[in-house]
Amino acid sequence: MVQYSQTLDGTFSALSDPTRRAILERLGRGPATIGELTEPSGMSLTGLGKHVRVLEEAGLVTTEKLGRTRECRLGPGRLEDATRWIERYRRLWECRLDGLEGYLEKNRGSKE
Amino acid sequence: MVQYSQTLDGTFSALSDPTRRAILERLGRGPATIGELTEPSGMSLTGLGKHVRVLEEAGLVTTEKLGRTRECRLGPGRLEDATRWIERYRRLWECRLDGLEGYLEKNRGSKE
Repeated sequence: MVQYSQTLDGTFSALSDPTRRAILERLGRGPATIGELTEPSGMSLTGLGKHVRVLEEAGLVTTEKLGRTRECRLGPGRLEDATRWIERYRRLWECRLDGLEGYLEKNRGSKE
Repeated sequence: MVQYSQTLDGTFSALSDPTRRAILERLGRGPATIGELTEPSGMSLTGLGKHVRVLEEAGLVTTEKLGRTRECRLGPGRLEDATRWIERYRRLWECRLDGLEGYLEKNRGSKE
């Protein structure tokens, strides 16, 4: 349970930055070197490398040294836990809404 | 687009903490005062209040002062954007996997 919770912390934290989300979207189209990943934002290699490390720690990206470059690709983390958590939350929300509708319906009925 | 991106930053960042996820799960069962929310964790009112503020800023919780207490309930943020982003990412991931399978299949075919 603690393990699961820490994984979620890392996943949601990794996703909370627009540069990191853009890296994941780019890698969804195929592997890229750190240098190629800096192109759209013009960010430095060091700055970009830090974001890649956060994604790597969350299991969302893997990297491999190839000669003088480092190639990045999507990692094994497929966001199942994050999706499951969000879906459970949405169901709770919808139950609350249904409850509220029922209450309003009942109150309307009693006034008529 | 920037607006959407900032909303996602706030949502994912709000979800990256286990106490904040526990607050949302608790509020999914009904409204609660800040005092009631401290009970499971034994956290101070001030500490808990800070987490509630983060959730409020992300639109996930609303609060209302009722006499000397503050009542919290689930807010309008229903994680649609977060769900949509994650789903899009998962689809990218699955396309990558399909591509890999196709490649392996083809290579196996050419060796036979």
